[in-house]
Amino acid sequence: MPHFRIGQGIDFHQLSADISGGLRLGGITLPSSKGAVGHSDADALLHAICDALLGAAALGDIGTYFPDTDPAWKGVDSRVLLQQCVNKVLSQGYEVCNLDCTVCLQTPKIKPYIPAMQQEIARIVQIQPDQVSIKATTTEHLGFIGREEGIAAMAVVLLMKA
Amino acid sequence: MPHFRIGQGIDFHQLSADISGGLRLGGITLPSSKGAVGHSDADALLHAICDALLGAAALGDIGTYFPDTDPAWKGVDSRVLLQQCVNKVLSQGYEVCNLDCTVCLQTPKIKPYIPAMQQEIARIVQIQPDQVSIKATTTEHLGFIGREEGIAAMAVVLLMKA
Amino acid sequence: MPHFRIGQGIDFHQLSADISGGLRLGGITLPSSKGAVGHSDADALLHAICDALLGAAALGDIGTYFPDTDPAWKGVDSRVLLQQCVNKVLSQGYEVCNLDCTVCLQTPKIKPYIPAMQQEIARIVQIQPDQVSIKATTTEHLGFIGREEGIAAMAVVLLMKA
Repeated sequence: MPHFRIGQGIDFHQLSADISGGLRLGGITLPSSKGAVGHSDADALLHAICDALLGAAALGDIGTYFPDTDPAWKGVDSRVLLQQCVNKVLSQGYEVCNLDCTVCLQTPKIKPYIPAMQQEIARIVQIQPDQVSIKATTTEHLGFIGREEGIAAMAVVLLMKA
Repeated sequence: MPHFRIGQGIDFHQLSADISGGLRLGGITLPSSKGAVGHSDADALLHAICDALLGAAALGDIGTYFPDTDPAWKGVDSRVLLQQCVNKVLSQGYEVCNLDCTVCLQTPKIKPYIPAMQQEIARIVQIQPDQVSIKATTTEHLGFIGREEGIAAMAVVLLMKA
Repeated sequence: MPHFRIGQGIDFHQLSADISGGLRLGGITLPSSKGAVGHSDADALLHAICDALLGAAALGDIGTYFPDTDPAWKGVDSRVLLQQCVNKVLSQGYEVCNLDCTVCLQTPKIKPYIPAMQQEIARIVQIQPDQVSIKATTTEHLGFIGREEGIAAMAVVLLMKA
């Protein structure tokens, strides 16, 4: 009988017009008048997935391995962080059944970029794109997300060990 | 060996005293001095469940099928949207193990109406009422929900394919 | 073939410097200049876990059993509430596969206290510490959590019935 575990993750970043060059999200760069502020590339979606994977396997959280006070991770591409988290989880004998995520962002619309994010995440997590779901919602102009001051991303994951 | 997948959804709507006739939530109408603002009937709970179901099956999100720019969905009863999402998921061969939801709302108290919501959701999703859980919390007067400016609803779902 | 169910919970509390003696979280007391305001000991993490467990088993929510208007629960240690929720779930024949949680809090850093929380939660839920994951995130100074006015905690749980 296989063994199942679930995990969830949530991550927040400030958005700022001072960060030029677009918004890092889901391992790609989206055209955006504001970028996300952070010690790494501030990819909220990849960070939420890292935490969901680590949480499901009870291996700590993204801050355990990549503290935002460590200069080694300054400006790092979060795909590197996700790859390391995936490696930790797979090395415990787990496989990833599926990942489901929601990005809460007022603007820009991310829908056209979702297939590219799914491909990139699936590649790193070593699953098929149809095992990666990314959904989008605004907060209907409410709160700090609605005021375009920040972004939040959430993820849930199901792991199986044979 | 059956195949399992998990999904999650979250939805937000503004509340306004300009929307009279009560609050649409979980497929029913609750007495409320404020209603929810939206293109459809703005039922945050049904929208979160739609997204959790679609997300678990990696079929996109509620905006994929029912964009809030499409006049076809203006004022639509969200039970129609949930029915269509359920049909998409069931047609892929999945069955719904259970749904668990939380409504974040400062006022009114929704507890007396939860059994009616469970019945209605169970009917549409084609499961038993004891496979649908709806919980309620306030935000202790914090943030836009605490100021009674908005509502949020969250859902998780477990799907199985034999 | 065993039967699986998932649940999720979220809880919010105000933080106040008027609450002295530290912050109750995960069944322990952390050094903190602000404590959490509530009818009980206001342990947001244990409350989120209570709701996730009850929700997965479709047994209502923490307010169903422990209303914050009932003087019986004034100042109660939330470990007592969690124990009662666990008993309800186990008495239905479920076992807990794993619990994964995130605490959203700007300050203080909770990481040094996580092992003690895991031990305490595992003891009450009657599982092993490695079946309990607790993660931490700030909101990057955004919103009421970022302004240190409040705390939020989230949990997901997977239940199995043989």
